[in-house]
Amino acid sequence: MKLPTPRKVRRVTVVGTGVIGTSVALALQRSGVRVWLTDHDEEALSEAVRMGAGTPLPDPAPRADVVVVATPPSTVATVLSDAQQRDLGTVYTDVASTKSRIITQVEQAACDLTSYVPGHPIAGHELSGPTAAHPDMFDSRPWVLCPHPATAPQALRTTASLITLCGARPTILSPEVHDQMVAAVSHVPHLVSAALAARFAAADEHTLSLAGKGLQDTTRIARGAPALWRDILQHNAHPIATVLEAIVHDLSEAAQALRATDQEALTDLLTRGNRGREHILNVLHPTSTG
Amino acid sequence: MKLPTPRKVRRVTVVGTGVIGTSVALALQRSGVRVWLTDHDEEALSEAVRMGAGTPLPDPAPRADVVVVATPPSTVATVLSDAQQRDLGTVYTDVASTKSRIITQVEQAACDLTSYVPGHPIAGHELSGPTAAHPDMFDSRPWVLCPHPATAPQALRTTASLITLCGARPTILSPEVHDQMVAAVSHVPHLVSAALAARFAAADEHTLSLAGKGLQDTTRIARGAPALWRDILQHNAHPIATVLEAIVHDLSEAAQALRATDQEALTDLLTRGNRGREHILNVLHPTSTG
Repeated sequence: MKLPTPRKVRRVTVVGTGVIGTSVALALQRSGVRVWLTDHDEEALSEAVRMGAGTPLPDPAPRADVVVVATPPSTVATVLSDAQQRDLGTVYTDVASTKSRIITQVEQAACDLTSYVPGHPIAGHELSGPTAAHPDMFDSRPWVLCPHPATAPQALRTTASLITLCGARPTILSPEVHDQMVAAVSHVPHLVSAALAARFAAADEHTLSLAGKGLQDTTRIARGAPALWRDILQHNAHPIATVLEAIVHDLSEAAQALRATDQEALTDLLTRGNRGREHILNVLHPTSTG
Repeated sequence: MKLPTPRKVRRVTVVGTGVIGTSVALALQRSGVRVWLTDHDEEALSEAVRMGAGTPLPDPAPRADVVVVATPPSTVATVLSDAQQRDLGTVYTDVASTKSRIITQVEQAACDLTSYVPGHPIAGHELSGPTAAHPDMFDSRPWVLCPHPATAPQALRTTASLITLCGARPTILSPEVHDQMVAAVSHVPHLVSAALAARFAAADEHTLSLAGKGLQDTTRIARGAPALWRDILQHNAHPIATVLEAIVHDLSEAAQALRATDQEALTDLLTRGNRGREHILNVLHPTSTG
């Protein structure tokens, strides 16, 4: 994507000092940006400040070049509306992993759409809270922007500058395409990982004594915070359900094939799995598939 | 487990120079054991020899202290029967990841059961063939033995010595318990990983441009060879189907909950996923869960 000339981003306010908000703040500070932080959770705020992510937003609040709303999906519209009413910044963006429903909610909340650029950095951590944050989290990662028809070009340009300052690569997508893609590459894997890990919810050490790297890797993301993830999943419910239903179909066919000793159905699923994994590797590690 | 005094294991023949057989050979050579190799695939055999895993089994074959059958599950009984007829060794073991059906087949093939110790090292690699082998593969890993009532104590003792020489920890389980545990911790995760990866079997680069570490980790084991894995899955069909049916149940409930905006069902699955992941971490990394 060819980027327009960056508008200077010198002062940023981050609303929400969870793992993503704090990582954005740390990445921006690394690039010499002045960062103010705010969070209704005072403990999280103190921790982010202690980690060097920025200073608490003073009262009265100074006007930032960009306000980054880094709160759970269901709160973005309210937090944005409040921030705009307080005139906290020139440009506003968010970092939630779902976009269509948030944009509808932002429209319904009568927010100013010209200054708002819906966003989503494609990065994260299975743990929540500021202590899991890292300034390198966005380095070379895609960071999607889904501008609204009403979004001002200057606001889009400024947000793209912020993304570059975080070390990431801005990518423009429609909210619908974004949501479908993220359902497949992130939200569904999360649910499937949870369903795999759930088999061991009541497991003792004996049952798990044979666990190895396969189970470790397939269940890593099942560690995400349930309340946040329920919020994310519900915000992207239908695209996720569609992919999930395809997986349920494949797995129940596999279970039937096992009961009926049907070799072909198993070979077909395993072969498609091979092919999919190869595509994933080609994209993530273009040189490693040989 | 308290081990009996090791019987000396000085000469071992490995039948099958795939990733596991070659790793066993490399691990034994590292401990000063003399290793002979044989495989009907001459290319795999040459590669294993080239890697320093051992020398080709001469003809007439010398008698080994232990013969390790490292071929796919459905071939173990035939290969064992043939090896015993050729009197290739004093003690015989195998490394297949399923046990009950192999033991039945070995009984049906009228093999000598006193000298045979069914085994399964809990280690592996998503790639097949000798080039993916590594001498450290079994270091500190469990290695299950499922002795038959007819297995001679001396044969069990010798196989335990071989396991120790490979750097692993011998663990005794019944074949039924082994198969159920491995279904849950290894075979089902493989199928689920394949079903996740299968969503990208026809994916272009654009669809995958937002893929990150979550998708990478959850689909890593989907790279396994389909023919070998179909063989493994069919050999442990019913224990796998039982676990898989529970996962299908959870995931189809999740899909319904997403369509119906049912918060509780989602929270329940995510919370059980959290709990299961915590148990897995407690076993695999006792110090990292804090």
